[in-house]
Amino acid sequence: MRVKVYITPRRGVLDPQGRAIEASLKSLGFNDVGPVRMGKYIELEVAAASPAQASAEVRRMCEQLLANTVIEDYRFEVEDA
Amino acid sequence: MRVKVYITPRRGVLDPQGRAIEASLKSLGFNDVGPVRMGKYIELEVAAASPAQASAEVRRMCEQLLANTVIEDYRFEVEDA
Repeated sequence: MRVKVYITPRRGVLDPQGRAIEASLKSLGFNDVGPVRMGKYIELEVAAASPAQASAEVRRMCEQLLANTVIEDYRFEVEDA
Repeated sequence: MRVKVYITPRRGVLDPQGRAIEASLKSLGFNDVGPVRMGKYIELEVAAASPAQASAEVRRMCEQLLANTVIEDYRFEVEDA
């Protein structure tokens, strides 16, 4: 099953990459750009019997490795294909 | 307008971060995980008169700064809010 994981800095956590992108965009002339948040996007394949089982497994992956839950939020979509 | 940008390594381009994540997941016991691709996820705000105008602007941002189109693909969603 294909899974898409989105990891974003938590609200209130400083996001220096996002700030740098915003400043760079403005210096390139994109003056109507507002706040930018930079996160991670991970696509993976999981062999699971059901979407529910895949979800449970991906949740554990996020908690254990993919996201730093102190400063990052995560969400994911399981594509039942 | 809120925009979500997804940047992924192009098919065929080596993705060392994805390979490292896959190896780490397996060493943590997630043995039914398959290929992992690691990309970037960027949320931003654009002040634009219409979704079409926002799309055109974000496309230019991706081409000029956000994505390295030699090795990365990008796609984005404009949320009309």
